[in-house]
Amino acid sequence: MTASKKTSAIWGGRFDGGPSEVMDAINVSIDTDKRLYKQDLAGSRAHCRMLGKQGIIPQADADTILKGLDSIEAEMEAGTFPFRREYEDIHMNIEARLAELIGPIAGRLHTARSRNDQVVTSFRKWIFENADGVLNDIQNLIDILNTKSAAHKNTVMPGYTHTQVAQPVTLGLHLDAYAQMLKRDHARLTEALDRVGECPLGAAALAGTSYPIDRAMTAKELGFESVMQNPMDAVGARDFVLEILSVCAICGANLSRIAEELVLWSSTQFGFIRIADDFTSGSSIMPQKRNPDAAEIVRAKTGRLNGELMNMLTMMKALPLTYNKDMQEDKLAVFNAIDTLSLCLKATSGQIEGMKVNEDVMRSAAESGYSTATELADWLVQTHGIPFRECHHIVGHVVKLAEGKGLRLDQLSLADLQSVDVRITAEAQKSLSVEGALKRRKII
Amino acid sequence: MTASKKTSAIWGGRFDGGPSEVMDAINVSIDTDKRLYKQDLAGSRAHCRMLGKQGIIPQADADTILKGLDSIEAEMEAGTFPFRREYEDIHMNIEARLAELIGPIAGRLHTARSRNDQVVTSFRKWIFENADGVLNDIQNLIDILNTKSAAHKNTVMPGYTHTQVAQPVTLGLHLDAYAQMLKRDHARLTEALDRVGECPLGAAALAGTSYPIDRAMTAKELGFESVMQNPMDAVGARDFVLEILSVCAICGANLSRIAEELVLWSSTQFGFIRIADDFTSGSSIMPQKRNPDAAEIVRAKTGRLNGELMNMLTMMKALPLTYNKDMQEDKLAVFNAIDTLSLCLKATSGQIEGMKVNEDVMRSAAESGYSTATELADWLVQTHGIPFRECHHIVGHVVKLAEGKGLRLDQLSLADLQSVDVRITAEAQKSLSVEGALKRRKII
Amino acid sequence: MTASKKTSAIWGGRFDGGPSEVMDAINVSIDTDKRLYKQDLAGSRAHCRMLGKQGIIPQADADTILKGLDSIEAEMEAGTFPFRREYEDIHMNIEARLAELIGPIAGRLHTARSRNDQVVTSFRKWIFENADGVLNDIQNLIDILNTKSAAHKNTVMPGYTHTQVAQPVTLGLHLDAYAQMLKRDHARLTEALDRVGECPLGAAALAGTSYPIDRAMTAKELGFESVMQNPMDAVGARDFVLEILSVCAICGANLSRIAEELVLWSSTQFGFIRIADDFTSGSSIMPQKRNPDAAEIVRAKTGRLNGELMNMLTMMKALPLTYNKDMQEDKLAVFNAIDTLSLCLKATSGQIEGMKVNEDVMRSAAESGYSTATELADWLVQTHGIPFRECHHIVGHVVKLAEGKGLRLDQLSLADLQSVDVRITAEAQKSLSVEGALKRRKII
Amino acid sequence: MTASKKTSAIWGGRFDGGPSEVMDAINVSIDTDKRLYKQDLAGSRAHCRMLGKQGIIPQADADTILKGLDSIEAEMEAGTFPFRREYEDIHMNIEARLAELIGPIAGRLHTARSRNDQVVTSFRKWIFENADGVLNDIQNLIDILNTKSAAHKNTVMPGYTHTQVAQPVTLGLHLDAYAQMLKRDHARLTEALDRVGECPLGAAALAGTSYPIDRAMTAKELGFESVMQNPMDAVGARDFVLEILSVCAICGANLSRIAEELVLWSSTQFGFIRIADDFTSGSSIMPQKRNPDAAEIVRAKTGRLNGELMNMLTMMKALPLTYNKDMQEDKLAVFNAIDTLSLCLKATSGQIEGMKVNEDVMRSAAESGYSTATELADWLVQTHGIPFRECHHIVGHVVKLAEGKGLRLDQLSLADLQSVDVRITAEAQKSLSVEGALKRRKII
Repeated sequence: MTASKKTSAIWGGRFDGGPSEVMDAINVSIDTDKRLYKQDLAGSRAHCRMLGKQGIIPQADADTILKGLDSIEAEMEAGTFPFRREYEDIHMNIEARLAELIGPIAGRLHTARSRNDQVVTSFRKWIFENADGVLNDIQNLIDILNTKSAAHKNTVMPGYTHTQVAQPVTLGLHLDAYAQMLKRDHARLTEALDRVGECPLGAAALAGTSYPIDRAMTAKELGFESVMQNPMDAVGARDFVLEILSVCAICGANLSRIAEELVLWSSTQFGFIRIADDFTSGSSIMPQKRNPDAAEIVRAKTGRLNGELMNMLTMMKALPLTYNKDMQEDKLAVFNAIDTLSLCLKATSGQIEGMKVNEDVMRSAAESGYSTATELADWLVQTHGIPFRECHHIVGHVVKLAEGKGLRLDQLSLADLQSVDVRITAEAQKSLSVEGALKRRKII
Repeated sequence: MTASKKTSAIWGGRFDGGPSEVMDAINVSIDTDKRLYKQDLAGSRAHCRMLGKQGIIPQADADTILKGLDSIEAEMEAGTFPFRREYEDIHMNIEARLAELIGPIAGRLHTARSRNDQVVTSFRKWIFENADGVLNDIQNLIDILNTKSAAHKNTVMPGYTHTQVAQPVTLGLHLDAYAQMLKRDHARLTEALDRVGECPLGAAALAGTSYPIDRAMTAKELGFESVMQNPMDAVGARDFVLEILSVCAICGANLSRIAEELVLWSSTQFGFIRIADDFTSGSSIMPQKRNPDAAEIVRAKTGRLNGELMNMLTMMKALPLTYNKDMQEDKLAVFNAIDTLSLCLKATSGQIEGMKVNEDVMRSAAESGYSTATELADWLVQTHGIPFRECHHIVGHVVKLAEGKGLRLDQLSLADLQSVDVRITAEAQKSLSVEGALKRRKII
Repeated sequence: MTASKKTSAIWGGRFDGGPSEVMDAINVSIDTDKRLYKQDLAGSRAHCRMLGKQGIIPQADADTILKGLDSIEAEMEAGTFPFRREYEDIHMNIEARLAELIGPIAGRLHTARSRNDQVVTSFRKWIFENADGVLNDIQNLIDILNTKSAAHKNTVMPGYTHTQVAQPVTLGLHLDAYAQMLKRDHARLTEALDRVGECPLGAAALAGTSYPIDRAMTAKELGFESVMQNPMDAVGARDFVLEILSVCAICGANLSRIAEELVLWSSTQFGFIRIADDFTSGSSIMPQKRNPDAAEIVRAKTGRLNGELMNMLTMMKALPLTYNKDMQEDKLAVFNAIDTLSLCLKATSGQIEGMKVNEDVMRSAAESGYSTATELADWLVQTHGIPFRECHHIVGHVVKLAEGKGLRLDQLSLADLQSVDVRITAEAQKSLSVEGALKRRKII
Repeated sequence: MTASKKTSAIWGGRFDGGPSEVMDAINVSIDTDKRLYKQDLAGSRAHCRMLGKQGIIPQADADTILKGLDSIEAEMEAGTFPFRREYEDIHMNIEARLAELIGPIAGRLHTARSRNDQVVTSFRKWIFENADGVLNDIQNLIDILNTKSAAHKNTVMPGYTHTQVAQPVTLGLHLDAYAQMLKRDHARLTEALDRVGECPLGAAALAGTSYPIDRAMTAKELGFESVMQNPMDAVGARDFVLEILSVCAICGANLSRIAEELVLWSSTQFGFIRIADDFTSGSSIMPQKRNPDAAEIVRAKTGRLNGELMNMLTMMKALPLTYNKDMQEDKLAVFNAIDTLSLCLKATSGQIEGMKVNEDVMRSAAESGYSTATELADWLVQTHGIPFRECHHIVGHVVKLAEGKGLRLDQLSLADLQSVDVRITAEAQKSLSVEGALKRRKII
């Protein structure tokens, strides 16, 4: 690209530069895709070894190229690699640097390869390498939930529906529900990675190549499970991007629910938990505040995850085959999503692990709200064979009585209970305590 | 709910009714969820049989209830079932009708069950039954693409990148690329259904139940693969909804690309295909128009699929456990997505199957745009061992020469070619024809 | 469209019908756009009168057509109009019916008009007529918030940041904050309607017409403010749809915040309010529950509003000029959004109007959480000129002292306070009561 | 925040650091919000002058603070300001630096102000300052469209509906349609900025302040149009963010349509235009390619704009009043949207300005596709008073005749035309040429 610097008369205004600067700003991706350098080098090495082995390029040239790639990796790690905007992306930067280091032989590396298959190979490899970290993050959170759940298997708390106290449960059961959701997130990500792990290298620009390449060899060396058969699919498909972003957004939705509960539970009104200092902050004007900052940001970052998914769903809409420059935007979206999700998982793990549970407050809340009413209804069905809907009405009267007297259900006397229905016995009365209710249920 | 009809002074304005009408309009879901009637009846039958077998209710009562459910199914199929808004949803409508038909015994059906687990059981069952139809739709489209692809394995057409003619390919290869994408859509949906197929029944309101129920029995009878262990997860999770909607949106994105190409290919400028009359329409003012209506609507409906996904990602954000009324919105979203995707798949299948390919126009387009330039570059590398980047420059000069003379590459004389580089031979010249180029490539 | 019913061999499977049925299902819009009948009739009348006045058609024919349109309107209102799917949309249905009623003269109505400008004219008219209702709904809610706010101008409640009690405020101030947001929603919708109110009629298919039409006349009769100058813009633009949907989504976001607070405030833990019976429901298994159903559904429907916006943002992406069939999807999206927002506004109004405020609970919550700490800090600055950051530290010690003693700040003795800093006086002590704090602040 | 560095046993795994590092990563916003430094300094200066003038702090202290702020601005501009992550955001960084520079007096600046009102004041100011640049960008594009439109007021091209050639138009008219859309984008942004321009400063944390501040003075000095009356609204509302993002997304949708047409028009098949070298790139493997990279990226970035809108719509859903940490995410979303839209506008301007129009190709395309058929139909109505629908059928036969003979409509002989209908005259024949058709239409 040799863009002219001349600006037109009408252009003017706030815009200082000419077209070439605009093109540079909109087109150059090196700031984003430099994160792919390891994967690009790995891809080039695998491709180079294959070219040598297949006799497509002389083995000596292959060796020279490999040495050059080693030098580049060393520069990258030392922080001395000369990134240059005029080479637009990480792939061209490395290619240009290779030519500087080893001369015209560098040109042979691009034999039987196009930037189209090269880029998407690096990108897929980056995803499965980095998503592996996310899988660890999910597993860590599951482990922490399991540990905490076990520690609180007998900690009574109110179970809610509609944010109304419904029935007593245990904190162990509640935390385990989140562990179940995260196990499904883990499965979803694992399955998505199976599809990411198909190797596009060898598709060249879009139509394959006439060189006698060995696609299985490069795929295997790069850690892919299989080879993509159709070259137009290989360079033109991005459903793997949409799937990864979907999986991240769904996991984010699950995390936002945990975050919401951390915020509510640590609020003045609930007072169920105290989030560790690490994850809260004070106020610049209100000395007494303990703000659940980390939980709030995890909750907010659901927006980022939904946003990146919508970004790519929009971008991919109605793109004809095969590669279109539009697809360059896919990398930032995925980087953002993977980074965001990983961070949110870690912050959630840290908060769950470090939270202090106010067991008395939880228990007291479980006893409020007539949360054991269902148990009495069930007892009436089971003991007297009264149809459920009728029991519902009897218990409704019991609740009203308790409400009128300002008592909890388990504080009503047997006489009170029998004033509503004589079939209620002392045994029935036991089901009205939180312990009685929990003991009756098998599933917990 | 016995809402008063009295309206307040300030309320007034354009709003005729009182609060009760607003509540009716916002709360009643029967118009949407009546589609679940078969699944609700199946769920009730399975639950009823289990209650009888476990001795939770007398077997005679179970039999009476089952007969009542049969009567209701008969009414549904005859179109005589009395749907009533005052019973809000399909589940309460059926329950109320059952009581009318068999009397108070009907009340026993609700033993050891809550609307929370009942609804989500019906919904999950509806999804895997109906998604099965979508799997068929996807497979049908794959089959049609495969048939068409086989029929056109030698039909030459231009392969595009950036909507620019790049290299010649075949229509067979192009259509196969879409078949590959749809195979992944099929896999994604299949895997998502594994997670839908976990049975929540038995979770009751949120905390399980004290009755000696047999969850494995009901799950099996209803066609579920497994039982959800945690009752709070069972009634409170909706990640299965998000996953189904994601899978639909991703498949929709793939279909929007086919649709875009159908629109472009049938445009006056491309003229590659003629879409069958079935899927086009004329204009009320322009007699000559053949509008690709179906393709355009398939393309547009990507929006609906993205929209329903965003709808539910928004809805689920930050909902505390367990069930919240918000979740009632999940059914319309999923119904819309499944219906939309199924219809788009069918319309795409119909268009692909019925399209008439203008092979001459496609071939002529493939010959334009210097689409075989890459082949000459590759020949130079392979025959003379010239570094790829240098070959690139040689071929650039050849293209310029052809452009200047207004010729296609295969129309240049050998003398013309050798005026650029003497190493170009008659054999090289062959690679410049579309057939020569295609023959050289292995992958197709 | 005369689609054949013959189905192909490969088609088969679950799909019973042939292409024509699929095309019918995807293409026919009468079920959705029948809502436009009044606007279509108004548009036709205005167009017809203009054609007559301009002498484009004979006045007698115009009169005949107008009578025919009257008959159709009567049929519509009587519910006897014969809607037929084979005429696809409301416009063709009316046109076909007109021909049946008055014969071939009906054909003259379509002179100098195309379905493209006809449809978008009806749609824009529908929007500004129906959005007017939404403006009333918004104003109603503002009025109710203002009334409630005035009634509670002295009702003390905790002001929250981070869902943590921060400083005491009044319920009046809190409700007024929502009134402010809704005033901006009102302004946004009003401004959006200015752009909806530009008349596209006369643009014909896309390029205007050669007839001597009077566009100002039809625009005025139909209630438009102005005439769109460019016919390609008139039939091809849909940014007015995106803007209306944005405005709805933003208002929905504001309503979701009110809904969240109604849910929290009516929860067992907060107990600040009791939502009227009209807008709550009980539980089928838990007799004591009062579920804030309407608030939850308003909160959930933010998803529908966001979803319809994303639907149309996706649909419009990258559509070339001018009209494309894709745009047919715009009507359902807007109908859904307007209906949803109107309903959510009414449900919110009803809940705010009918809610019972537990003033004692609110007040007691305001006194908890050391909410007046800031006031003491400010007093120290104002009275002793101590830098704010230093006061922050002093007050921090006061809070710790109160926390240790299990007291509210206003329950600390002067001696207690002076044990932290001797500069704290009896006057300062007053600022620690909720009333003292509120009195000091001007803004409320 | 004094987070411990100790990591727990279970934490382990891939996660090297402890909670404090996670909190740092998720909580610290300085990398993003450093862009607000000018606005924060302006806000602090205005607040400081007001504090001094009102006697809330000694004038000498105010002067000292103002000098300190000058020093900080100098450091910022010299690139020597010491940004530190431990101070989290730009506001705390500046506050901490001020204390280092001028000592404890710095503490007085925070009198009668909270970070809550400080941050949102800076942010609003940033938006209206930077949106002003976007308004210029929009106006520039309108100017360029107008210039190009005027230059091509007689350049004939096909007008499309459904991507099918419909009627001849001029390129001038087509480009003007986009200018009209952009004028509405300009109006939308201008109106949104009216709402951004309301000053929240003085709201303090959420409840106002007891100091005798002069809010009108600070608002005016900072360039705001008015003062926000309700402090809870001032710190808790973010509908201004949603509105700005909506306006950006709508404008992006319009730009995506121009981008799509640039891609199509410069494709091999259309060949209508040649995009300037500045905005295209070649291919690494196909020397002949001219890829419309900039147009494709503008088209893709619709995704980013939609994504940021969805991000914030999700984030704001169901947030209770007033400030929540979630809102910290608003800045990156707006920065991304404003940057993206500005760049897309500039890239579109550059491409429109520099594109070379192939007038012959456009004209020839306009003559194809029987694009003047409508004119003949209109002539029949106007001249012979034949009902429009009947004319439609006559012209249909004419098109079929031309199709059969392989001729354009204007190439049919009068005898040919009269073989379909004898009422067609030589005058009618003229309407079949592109010039004849264009001349007849008034609107262009």
